[in-house]
Amino acid sequence: MSLKASHRAMVPFVSVDNMMRLVHHIGIETFIADLAQAIEEDFAKWEQFDKTPRVGSHSDVGVIELMPTSDGVLYGFKYVNGHPKNMGEGLQTVTAFGVLSDVYSGYPKLFTEMTLLTALRTAAMSAVATKHLAAPGAHTMAMIGNGAQSEFQCLAVKAVCGVQTVRLYDIDPAATAKCARNLAGLGLNVVQCETPEEAIEGAQIITTATADKDMQTILTDNMVGAGVHINAIGGDCPGKTELHRDIVARASVFVEYPPQTRIEGEIQQMDPDHPVTELWQVITGQTKGRKSADEVTLFDGVGFAIEDFSALRYVHDRIKDTPYYIDLDLIADPDDPRDLFGMLKRAK
Amino acid sequence: MSLKASHRAMVPFVSVDNMMRLVHHIGIETFIADLAQAIEEDFAKWEQFDKTPRVGSHSDVGVIELMPTSDGVLYGFKYVNGHPKNMGEGLQTVTAFGVLSDVYSGYPKLFTEMTLLTALRTAAMSAVATKHLAAPGAHTMAMIGNGAQSEFQCLAVKAVCGVQTVRLYDIDPAATAKCARNLAGLGLNVVQCETPEEAIEGAQIITTATADKDMQTILTDNMVGAGVHINAIGGDCPGKTELHRDIVARASVFVEYPPQTRIEGEIQQMDPDHPVTELWQVITGQTKGRKSADEVTLFDGVGFAIEDFSALRYVHDRIKDTPYYIDLDLIADPDDPRDLFGMLKRAK
Repeated sequence: MSLKASHRAMVPFVSVDNMMRLVHHIGIETFIADLAQAIEEDFAKWEQFDKTPRVGSHSDVGVIELMPTSDGVLYGFKYVNGHPKNMGEGLQTVTAFGVLSDVYSGYPKLFTEMTLLTALRTAAMSAVATKHLAAPGAHTMAMIGNGAQSEFQCLAVKAVCGVQTVRLYDIDPAATAKCARNLAGLGLNVVQCETPEEAIEGAQIITTATADKDMQTILTDNMVGAGVHINAIGGDCPGKTELHRDIVARASVFVEYPPQTRIEGEIQQMDPDHPVTELWQVITGQTKGRKSADEVTLFDGVGFAIEDFSALRYVHDRIKDTPYYIDLDLIADPDDPRDLFGMLKRAK
Repeated sequence: MSLKASHRAMVPFVSVDNMMRLVHHIGIETFIADLAQAIEEDFAKWEQFDKTPRVGSHSDVGVIELMPTSDGVLYGFKYVNGHPKNMGEGLQTVTAFGVLSDVYSGYPKLFTEMTLLTALRTAAMSAVATKHLAAPGAHTMAMIGNGAQSEFQCLAVKAVCGVQTVRLYDIDPAATAKCARNLAGLGLNVVQCETPEEAIEGAQIITTATADKDMQTILTDNMVGAGVHINAIGGDCPGKTELHRDIVARASVFVEYPPQTRIEGEIQQMDPDHPVTELWQVITGQTKGRKSADEVTLFDGVGFAIEDFSALRYVHDRIKDTPYYIDLDLIADPDDPRDLFGMLKRAK
């Protein structure tokens, strides 16, 4: 009984350091490709998930959100903050951690850092969208916004979609230089660009990941040619967009979960009934993705709890028999479950 | 910079084992009395809090809930499950953990077990209600339901309200024996009773903490005499009550947060506009609590996020300069916040 009890009391914890080791152990590209597959598996059973809008606590300088979901067997949630002003203070704009639990017992099965994991799953999600929506044979991506997400986005489309060239642009050339430096030697042709117009030259895919908490127009309508696929992933809260509304109006819009995207995504600029297609329906083949070579497709990504669930599930599976976690004594587990006080008393 | 960065990446973690050590270091009764004071402080600034109903994920066998709140400076949330069937499988019905964060940066400041802490704060909350509502000079409490919460409830009213005698009853005599055994030598007169009628003899306070997930009638109307104060704390989810509705109808009802209590508390049996008094208004003196010696007062406690916030805040304050926590490397904190990928790459 006591061996069992102590086993139950323990929850595996993956620190930032261990997450980095796990990623390198598996390989960054393999890790992202695996995450993309886990997301596709979960999106394919979309209707089984309990979909709750995220629960936000807003202040003047940022937001702290809880994003829970469950497929009836496992339950996951992510804590994530969004503080654009943090960067100026030497802190991360977005930090996150998460928990995976067993629905049947309510006991947690995994506690993990998710700042890195969110960057990886966000990149995997863009790659899933790109795989299903970009023109066949797309080989070049313009990466607009070269901050914390950018390298992950570039490697994800390389790993999942076979992209060979990335064209980088950021309003801050130092960010572009940082991104190019980090991508050096990883098998991509990397082109540093001085204007967004230069970045999108010859690109079949455009990914925007900029960070300002404002209505921005990173891309204007004349910049987006026929047949391009856009991943707009930086506009992830109310009042924050990246694309001119004319682009959104002209594109076929694909989203994760419409009730959330209408509040947080690019389509917050549009009418509340602006037509969108849910990406899970494209993944399952219920709906066609790209319908013609000329079509502009837009993945209006805001990040949804199911993607975090996929990432938690993947990490939980992959840490088994590795040294990349420690057990935390998180759950009080007295021999007699009614005897919580006795456990405390005996500990004296 | 790197020293600062590594400091920022760390979040103090209080395990179950360390929580027990902290409680004994401070003393159980002092700990509960301190928690009662922290709750009173936070209830006194009730209107400053961001009050969100808990977010529950329900299954056939239980619920997993997230309970967030914020006073604008600190943010706290608790993860808590409720699985009545767990006890039969040797697991805790309720387990919990929680996080306290800095609203300004969104960074977590504390991660802690809360199974024990919830039992302690729930007892402290009942003691706060009892202090403000029970008849002056009340010295005897009937404790109906002798499960995991019971000893904490008994010690709390001793520490905060001066109760000297507790009269124990449970449908399972083994639970009563366990509770009596645990309370032995802690300065209370403990009387084991064989019926609820026997338990309430001479008691000015009745506390019910039973665990079945059903509409139960633990107390019937004829059992409750004039002037008694009742803490009904076991009915803490929809479909779960403990008192006959005639008692609720006759009593003056005091609650934490009416929108939540109307769904989860004893008053779910009553009309949606059944009159209630918010306890924070009694604590601040805006409203009178007990108005006469004959009045039956009922604290319909369901547990609210602010109580967990008070407990998180207290533990965060008290672990300083103690050995009762470890630092977890939870927050990815690269020297350049835009260079998350560089941090990962350099870790190889």
